[in-house]
Amino acid sequence: SSQFDFADHSHRRYNPLTDSWVLVSPHRAKRPWLGQEESPSKPNAPEYDAACYLCPGNLRAFGDFNPSYSSTFIFTNDFPAVKAKQPEINSTDSPTSLKSRLLKTQSVEGQCFVICFSPKHNLTIPLMTFEALIKVVGAWTDLYRWLEKEAAMENKPYKYLQIFENKGTAMGCSNLHPHGQAWCLSTVPSEVEQEFRAFKKYLHQHSSHLMGDYITLELQERERIVLENETFLVVVPYWAVWPFETLVVSKPHLTSLVEFSDAQRKDLALIIKQLTVKYDNLFETSFPYSMGLHQAPLNANMKERANSWFHMHFYPPLLRSATVRKFLVGFELFGEPQRDLTAEQAAHRLRCLDSGVHYSQRSS
Amino acid sequence: SSQFDFADHSHRRYNPLTDSWVLVSPHRAKRPWLGQEESPSKPNAPEYDAACYLCPGNLRAFGDFNPSYSSTFIFTNDFPAVKAKQPEINSTDSPTSLKSRLLKTQSVEGQCFVICFSPKHNLTIPLMTFEALIKVVGAWTDLYRWLEKEAAMENKPYKYLQIFENKGTAMGCSNLHPHGQAWCLSTVPSEVEQEFRAFKKYLHQHSSHLMGDYITLELQERERIVLENETFLVVVPYWAVWPFETLVVSKPHLTSLVEFSDAQRKDLALIIKQLTVKYDNLFETSFPYSMGLHQAPLNANMKERANSWFHMHFYPPLLRSATVRKFLVGFELFGEPQRDLTAEQAAHRLRCLDSGVHYSQRSS
Ligand SMILES: O=P(O)(O)O[C@H]1O[C@H](CO)[C@@H](O)[C@H](O)[C@H]1O
Ligand SMILES: O=P(O)(O)O[C@H]1O[C@H](CO)[C@@H](O)[C@H](O)[C@H]1O
Repeated sequence: SSQFDFADHSHRRYNPLTDSWVLVSPHRAKRPWLGQEESPSKPNAPEYDAACYLCPGNLRAFGDFNPSYSSTFIFTNDFPAVKAKQPEINSTDSPTSLKSRLLKTQSVEGQCFVICFSPKHNLTIPLMTFEALIKVVGAWTDLYRWLEKEAAMENKPYKYLQIFENKGTAMGCSNLHPHGQAWCLSTVPSEVEQEFRAFKKYLHQHSSHLMGDYITLELQERERIVLENETFLVVVPYWAVWPFETLVVSKPHLTSLVEFSDAQRKDLALIIKQLTVKYDNLFETSFPYSMGLHQAPLNANMKERANSWFHMHFYPPLLRSATVRKFLVGFELFGEPQRDLTAEQAAHRLRCLDSGVHYSQRSS
Repeated sequence: SSQFDFADHSHRRYNPLTDSWVLVSPHRAKRPWLGQEESPSKPNAPEYDAACYLCPGNLRAFGDFNPSYSSTFIFTNDFPAVKAKQPEINSTDSPTSLKSRLLKTQSVEGQCFVICFSPKHNLTIPLMTFEALIKVVGAWTDLYRWLEKEAAMENKPYKYLQIFENKGTAMGCSNLHPHGQAWCLSTVPSEVEQEFRAFKKYLHQHSSHLMGDYITLELQERERIVLENETFLVVVPYWAVWPFETLVVSKPHLTSLVEFSDAQRKDLALIIKQLTVKYDNLFETSFPYSMGLHQAPLNANMKERANSWFHMHFYPPLLRSATVRKFLVGFELFGEPQRDLTAEQAAHRLRCLDSGVHYSQRSS
């Protein structure tokens, strides 16, 4: 054929959030797979596991006991990646030396939290009730609000709160008890900083927010939409890297969780539930992913708020089935990310799936 | 303690090649691991496997038979990510539309090759002879030279050749027969482009090459050096992300494989062998990794050559043992890469290991 076909010809798509490209090779999905297979998570885990350090009442690494909590439970990570207080770096190198030029270092302080989503060991987000998920969104919101106060009142150097979840062993989750994490840091992490830089540049060039314009465009085109409600839109972004990657973005210009109304919190809880039910239904398995919230820095000023736009990324690794994932390795690491189906193909498949009934609860 | 200790306190290090940061949390290596365990590759595979589509004489996906090759063997990937010829993209969108602004696309043409390193199904680079590895370096060089000619003489739009290897199932390798890949593209991939941008900026600011200055610095400091010979230096770079990541870099300013003398090709083959023997000896397992070569674009002009510097990256996932890897997930994907030991600690461990005798071939 002499016409360019997005579903058949190789092309690159530009990611305006990270200023990088992804290589799309849609014809490649047919290749055979003899490599590693994932072991899907075992069903029939007990509701309470005496050996789990996240279950209510159980003992943790350094002798603390969890309370017998009944909805969510937040505690400080026993093995935090950053600590609340440490000495400053005192460099004695001359600022013009090769060393100061090439080996740049910053001290980082902060706090790492674990957030148990539910007391029940064997649940996952798609299997939790809507009411329970509203409490999870509430717990994230309270944590963000509390850290803003801590930073302001106690003069803590906290700049950013990164909330995320690693679900499933394929995404490095070290305990299947439903939980996420939140790392509060004295620096804005690279990936977030890059988005802010892109937003700023776009705002400057076009006098509008990149995310706002992108939502407008996706609502016109409609072919990458997976879900939507009054407050949120879920799309497979045009530049998606992971096979079934999605972007959950607020339609109104919300900048952080603490700005949400009750109704907006419910809309977020609902759309997360619907999206993760679709994910589980895709390959009829507990679908692994890493997901993260991107929002305004803590105690953001007016300018920083104007530049932020609440959204979440879901990065799920599975490509063809419950056991065959996409590996982002070789070419992806040294060249650029490469994907084997188009964003539109992925969106179409996700859109067609049931978002109400989980495959394990179908009355066949 | 009131002194900042790099081996105990959290800090960020700047990666000047990619203009991003990595979070170093050296105290975190002690945390328990209940997550996914890798299955180390089974030893005692046969030298010839009738079911392997890379073994000499065997049938491939679309009916081709491999020749009965005796050293290296290169063929066009049966499931290439890019094709040699395809239609141009004809966009009818107005250049000021939201669509042209936010959904940027480029067509990509090229060729993908598979490079069998050896006819023997059960070998890996560290187990191959020095002589056989010289032939691998020779095969890479010949391919690069041939593609430069193709591009020039046949007017092919080829810009860059990305040579890489995914070793082991943990790094997405789909067949354990020793092989790598080489993707030749009509565009310079993102990651490479980013390095070129950093080199250009540095050259402009300091009138010297970033890589040359970095080598000078590492040869002074010595604490991150793993191996060296006349032509090459291997370090765990200051900004390493993967636990035992290394950078292999030429000491003289070499820009691509085709510039190497015989002696330099041998030096590369030798240092690759020594490095991968160390890797295997670290946890006494066939050490998985992705490795890639970065060099000048194809048919580079004088300016592009001045800006390029031959180097290789090795990204191995294992962290604590043959079965426990580092997952670059949640925080790493939404925030920034995070590591659990310092580059200096990793370099020290690699430096102390035997680079001559593979653990499987020790007498006693
Ligand atoms: O081409 P292979 O070996 O089948 O596939 C492997 O390497 C490719 C290039 O890095 C990746 O895109 C694949 O995800 C990976 O499984
Ligand atoms: O903190 P966890 O769940 O033990 O660990 C997991 O998440 C962390 C944050 O993304 C990663 O650094 C680890 O590699 C991963 O295994």
